[in-house]
Amino acid sequence: MDLESKIHNARTITTKAVFPGEANHYDTLFGGTALQWMDEIAFIAATRFTRKKVVTVSSDKVNFKVPIPTGSIVELDAQIVRVGNTSVEVSVDVWKEGMFQNDRVLALKGNFILVAVEK
Amino acid sequence: MDLESKIHNARTITTKAVFPGEANHYDTLFGGTALQWMDEIAFIAATRFTRKKVVTVSSDKVNFKVPIPTGSIVELDAQIVRVGNTSVEVSVDVWKEGMFQNDRVLALKGNFILVAVEK
Amino acid sequence: MDLESKIHNARTITTKAVFPGEANHYDTLFGGTALQWMDEIAFIAATRFTRKKVVTVSSDKVNFKVPIPTGSIVELDAQIVRVGNTSVEVSVDVWKEGMFQNDRVLALKGNFILVAVEK
Amino acid sequence: MDLESKIHNARTITTKAVFPGEANHYDTLFGGTALQWMDEIAFIAATRFTRKKVVTVSSDKVNFKVPIPTGSIVELDAQIVRVGNTSVEVSVDVWKEGMFQNDRVLALKGNFILVAVEK
Amino acid sequence: MDLESKIHNARTITTKAVFPGEANHYDTLFGGTALQWMDEIAFIAATRFTRKKVVTVSSDKVNFKVPIPTGSIVELDAQIVRVGNTSVEVSVDVWKEGMFQNDRVLALKGNFILVAVEK
Amino acid sequence: MDLESKIHNARTITTKAVFPGEANHYDTLFGGTALQWMDEIAFIAATRFTRKKVVTVSSDKVNFKVPIPTGSIVELDAQIVRVGNTSVEVSVDVWKEGMFQNDRVLALKGNFILVAVEK
Repeated sequence: MDLESKIHNARTITTKAVFPGEANHYDTLFGGTALQWMDEIAFIAATRFTRKKVVTVSSDKVNFKVPIPTGSIVELDAQIVRVGNTSVEVSVDVWKEGMFQNDRVLALKGNFILVAVEK
Repeated sequence: MDLESKIHNARTITTKAVFPGEANHYDTLFGGTALQWMDEIAFIAATRFTRKKVVTVSSDKVNFKVPIPTGSIVELDAQIVRVGNTSVEVSVDVWKEGMFQNDRVLALKGNFILVAVEK
Repeated sequence: MDLESKIHNARTITTKAVFPGEANHYDTLFGGTALQWMDEIAFIAATRFTRKKVVTVSSDKVNFKVPIPTGSIVELDAQIVRVGNTSVEVSVDVWKEGMFQNDRVLALKGNFILVAVEK
Repeated sequence: MDLESKIHNARTITTKAVFPGEANHYDTLFGGTALQWMDEIAFIAATRFTRKKVVTVSSDKVNFKVPIPTGSIVELDAQIVRVGNTSVEVSVDVWKEGMFQNDRVLALKGNFILVAVEK
Repeated sequence: MDLESKIHNARTITTKAVFPGEANHYDTLFGGTALQWMDEIAFIAATRFTRKKVVTVSSDKVNFKVPIPTGSIVELDAQIVRVGNTSVEVSVDVWKEGMFQNDRVLALKGNFILVAVEK
Repeated sequence: MDLESKIHNARTITTKAVFPGEANHYDTLFGGTALQWMDEIAFIAATRFTRKKVVTVSSDKVNFKVPIPTGSIVELDAQIVRVGNTSVEVSVDVWKEGMFQNDRVLALKGNFILVAVEK
């Protein structure tokens, strides 16, 4: 399989509804939970690209521009954006939309670098 | 927006890695956890289609044909398959693939009916 | 032990209080969480009956007739209803009652089929 | 309803399977998780007895005599053992059994005192 | 290392914010969750003191004097208070403070006994 | 209270044991879970410093230098390192130590910026 196809096949989408059990007492999603979700989908995309055991070695600066209230739908979209000898860089976009109107907006984005390690 | 576009836009994908915290002591995903994931994505797809408050009123018979071991990647794909006056039927396919080879297979599928209720 | 005693001994009860961490943002229990709870208690009843390693192979159609609000008490009651050569069928009744009045009602019920597999 | 019937009706049973997500890295259930389960079922029994809002005010000394390994079935049995003016005392027995043999044994027991408070 | 230093080094602090996912529907922390947190930090303190595999063998009577509402900060402080041949006793203080004012108060305290076991 | 005292009082420590339910199937802590823990303790430190409602607006680049296996003790240490008009910057050090030897090492560190918002 050529590189372009491998990158295309590694793209990973995940969709979540934000419920009270994942929110703080201000009724918005924790920033830390968003980071955790982003790292998990970056891990899946990097695994699909390499088909090897991978671990996160760094996360880039992340700006949280839009609060994500309880009752939102959140869609994460992970794509391979750079391929090194033993590492891959994955960009994760986090889209937020309401339940009752499709006011889709990019809430935050971040890049994660993962490396393949011995199984 | 016409019906076909609304159905197209409601399609929802979610991808998960199966980790030990979600598995039983036989190192496979619980059937009940798979059902929970399926209901959650059906809820999101029906919400996106109706843009109303919806609740599940029934789930159809589900066959679990393929065990899903710890360390699998699972992708759920929810699509609107029938539209009634106040209800929608959502079909959820659950695909399983390994981490180290793309042996993608349909592990189970099920249909859920949700209705719009007063907000 | 005869069959009747084995069926009697396999009966399994579990009781839960529905708290905010298990509810959606409409303040009712997820349908999917109810399915997960039902599968878990069916697994325990089938394990007690067979004293073997069992896995769920199918769940029957389930109707969710009564919403279960946060602050309810839920009691699940699993019983063996059919015994095959390698499979058992478990019926699970889900009873709902309020905290401050005993308005006990059957909220939903469903059947699960489990099979014994090699340990 | 007389006191004896109220006590009889308040009795609460809950059954759990101990899975890896609830165990420590020694593959046994945490003592603290057992305490949490005991408090939750004591809360349900006291709620059923009083049909009022109750809170835990104390837990008695608890001895953990038998370790509970991953893969056990645990049954908790809560009963009202003393009724005061505004408080009730609930005794909780925790029974452990294996999956593949019915070696049922009382693993620990403890008493909890709960009081009714203003709603 | 002398005993006093070992006791000093074993002291363990943990701080938590109480969010809706950990509260009951009365918007206060469960008593049982407090007990679980106390046992976990006692386990860490005893592990640090012994540097051996330890398990909880008993918890002493605990009084819950102050309710801990959602939105509180909780700080647990575990200290070795008695050293036996194979056991240690750990005292755990649970301090509660508000988010918007430092009204720090001892909400509850309890003692746990842990023993070293064969690895 | 002067600034130095406020900074001193805002320092927040939290200690965790890494159990199987928080690890991936490679038996190491998720990078994303570490990020979540870091954001949560940064939130507590910033709340203690400002005594206002705060939200995370950005996280800086984080390097994960040392894997954290299941069975480790992890201590997070959050300190205010910069104070702006409406924002604070919190540095979070994550220390890892084994259960059976005190091989304490700085596993990762990161900075989070939080701002006070209207209650």
